[in-house]
Amino acid sequence: MEAVTSPQQESNGPITRGCQWLKSLPNKFCDKTTEIARRTKKLGQDDPRRIVHSLKVGLAITLVSLFYYFKPLYDGFGNSAMWAVLTVVVVLEFSVGATLGKGLNRMLATLVAAALGFGAHRLASLSGRKGEPVLVATFVFITAVITTFMRFFPKVKARYDYGMMIFLLTFCLVSMSGYRDDQLLEMAHERFSTILVGSCASLIVCICVCPVWIGEDLHKSVAANIAKLANFLEAFGDEYFKVSEESNENNKSYLQGYRTVLTSKSSEETMVNFARWEPGHGPFGYRHPWKMYLKVGNLTRDCAYKVEALNTYLNCKIQMLFDFSKAPAEISGKIQEPCKRVSLECSLALKEMASTFRKMVLTRSAVMHIENSKKAAEELRSLLKTNLWEEADLLEIIPAASVASVLVEIIGCIEKISEAVNELGKAASFRKINATVLPEQQDSIQQETVQQDSNNTAILPVPHCVIIVAE
Amino acid sequence: MEAVTSPQQESNGPITRGCQWLKSLPNKFCDKTTEIARRTKKLGQDDPRRIVHSLKVGLAITLVSLFYYFKPLYDGFGNSAMWAVLTVVVVLEFSVGATLGKGLNRMLATLVAAALGFGAHRLASLSGRKGEPVLVATFVFITAVITTFMRFFPKVKARYDYGMMIFLLTFCLVSMSGYRDDQLLEMAHERFSTILVGSCASLIVCICVCPVWIGEDLHKSVAANIAKLANFLEAFGDEYFKVSEESNENNKSYLQGYRTVLTSKSSEETMVNFARWEPGHGPFGYRHPWKMYLKVGNLTRDCAYKVEALNTYLNCKIQMLFDFSKAPAEISGKIQEPCKRVSLECSLALKEMASTFRKMVLTRSAVMHIENSKKAAEELRSLLKTNLWEEADLLEIIPAASVASVLVEIIGCIEKISEAVNELGKAASFRKINATVLPEQQDSIQQETVQQDSNNTAILPVPHCVIIVAE
Repeated sequence: MEAVTSPQQESNGPITRGCQWLKSLPNKFCDKTTEIARRTKKLGQDDPRRIVHSLKVGLAITLVSLFYYFKPLYDGFGNSAMWAVLTVVVVLEFSVGATLGKGLNRMLATLVAAALGFGAHRLASLSGRKGEPVLVATFVFITAVITTFMRFFPKVKARYDYGMMIFLLTFCLVSMSGYRDDQLLEMAHERFSTILVGSCASLIVCICVCPVWIGEDLHKSVAANIAKLANFLEAFGDEYFKVSEESNENNKSYLQGYRTVLTSKSSEETMVNFARWEPGHGPFGYRHPWKMYLKVGNLTRDCAYKVEALNTYLNCKIQMLFDFSKAPAEISGKIQEPCKRVSLECSLALKEMASTFRKMVLTRSAVMHIENSKKAAEELRSLLKTNLWEEADLLEIIPAASVASVLVEIIGCIEKISEAVNELGKAASFRKINATVLPEQQDSIQQETVQQDSNNTAILPVPHCVIIVAE
Repeated sequence: MEAVTSPQQESNGPITRGCQWLKSLPNKFCDKTTEIARRTKKLGQDDPRRIVHSLKVGLAITLVSLFYYFKPLYDGFGNSAMWAVLTVVVVLEFSVGATLGKGLNRMLATLVAAALGFGAHRLASLSGRKGEPVLVATFVFITAVITTFMRFFPKVKARYDYGMMIFLLTFCLVSMSGYRDDQLLEMAHERFSTILVGSCASLIVCICVCPVWIGEDLHKSVAANIAKLANFLEAFGDEYFKVSEESNENNKSYLQGYRTVLTSKSSEETMVNFARWEPGHGPFGYRHPWKMYLKVGNLTRDCAYKVEALNTYLNCKIQMLFDFSKAPAEISGKIQEPCKRVSLECSLALKEMASTFRKMVLTRSAVMHIENSKKAAEELRSLLKTNLWEEADLLEIIPAASVASVLVEIIGCIEKISEAVNELGKAASFRKINATVLPEQQDSIQQETVQQDSNNTAILPVPHCVIIVAE
């Protein structure tokens, strides 16, 4: 039978498969479309500002294109009017900081390069029609080499990379055009004025229509990172010393949140670079110390590395060799109480910090919690010092002891974060508040932290729930 | 006296200070210039390819500017010839991958957008001179909104962000120009062909003159990161159990090298995105599994987090509360030998991996070292299980026990890295080599690893020092 059917299959095979493929095509297409639609919706829901930004780009381009369509406006600029539209496409970015950075870079670089390019052309034209290309090419070569190399300087790369590119571009354009274009000065002027119009239109739309301040995002993100560590530490105690095997779903998500902190460095650096372009806005004054956010961010990451070490003890990773992942119930029962307290007080200290930092107030309440956690650590120490352990197997004590020692390290990290936050608070003139936060108010602060955390795009809340005693 | 001198000082003060400032100006200027010169020199010395790249940009621009200067070439392109120069400025990047990505994005986006823009213009022109601007503006608005939103998709952002921008730019340019320019088709054609010339010139210069393959950089960087962890673990044993307070300077630099691994994620992702644009080159074939480098990189970072935990025990950070940073000599003496061995075998395993990975060969020698380290860990375990510890204070044991437990975790991490490297090696068809590396040859491999590490730009060495037994 097999020998008979196989040729049939062979001959029918490709056709059948082809038919099946054709039949499945509409389904596949439908699936793909649904998938894309689902992703698009999610992208919009995650941050509705993305939709607003897309509409803003459309609006700005349409506005600037009026220069091209209306004759009176067109006559002023001529064919260069198109440059205004192109400038909008290139300059209008998601955040005000990025748009301002690009816009200023583009305007300044064009102005300087147009002037230098014109000078280079005039200088070169002294050597006659034949010598001019050689001289201009030499100038262009030297400028290209120097500008390109300058883009490798870290400081230049961080803030003026785009400007350097536009400088080289405009310099080439203006100095070379002089060879074939008699009205060079007019052309340079047109180019600059259209870029001015395009950049200004981008800036106006970017700032006036639902502005996205990257500085505000940075501020929230640094606070959210601190809160993520707090969430882990809050859930850690219960999770590590849990009696049953069942785990709270809520805890699970809390326990994983900190992982994004580990790799947040480059996005924070980008945000700081953009935020430095932004003018004072809302609670962030002129010359807000954006660079100091990097220090707080670095210390938060250092703390996150310790949290990562704690996380190992939850995940049974070292079971295979040492026959343990968690200390047996008998051992862990003894140190459970102080360990949980250290973890919880650390969590409270971080939550306090995240909450007051977000609201831009300076309190000493985090310090209180740090002191409490130190006391609990001292208890843990004396507990470990007692001879309760004599009968126990050392191998069984190690995990619990390691957890205790990592927790103690975390206290040190949190102290450093607290100092850095205070330093930043002083430099940014946060309001000072006496640490007279009543317990029920503290609760409301904590609740707010969690709420804001789930909705990262929330508007900065006005601090209404702490008693302000301005000094 | 004081009352008499103070008005004098006041009146002389500003002038004197002004003079001093003026006098110090040349000095300051000199200092600044020297400082910039020093930095420039360092930037060039750190990676001489930067100087070469700058010269390449100059060369490419000068080459393309010939199109503008020579009449026969100019007549073909007209005034648009300038676009070729601008394209070179924008497209020519440091690495082949980045240049190819930008060049292909620019060419493809221009082609599609020019066609669509022309279609939009023809469609709009059907509605007469008055209706056309309204219709074109509507098309432009819709295109701008959709294109801008698409740039938020992570996959699009990673590979086609530049293309989306150029698409929108060209679409605006072509569809709108139709209103004032009669020779639209010619203009669209000129724009596309000049961009083609500019992109091709960039690519030719980029690939033919000292090409910088970002894939090769990525390959070396992943290997170097593994080697950095190996260096830490090699130095750790001696540093932690050292008798005297004096520390080897060489060890110090080894101990800090791993810190750059912690924050290498975003640069690795960028490199992978660029590397995927590159064609096969040298030992990296067509469709080299660049994405799998991300997995190896992530596992290396996970291991680096553990190494960071180990580093804490070197740095006396937790002394303040637990009265220890290191176990007392008596305790540490007992576990010194197996701990050092685990650390050293881990280091050897990582070095093997780094070296064979760099040379693109598959061996089982790293597995041997992992097995050795597991044996040492087992010894450590039985040592900790014995009752040698009964008389000791638990507090004194904790740091040593914690170090031991972290070392055991590191073995697990290294096993995972080894698996990922093997998986990558199979996918990328690394050559297979039997694990018959003789001791003296092993030494030479290790020495090479260190040499290559200090000179990150070294050319990929030919594997000449291992016995190849092709399977």
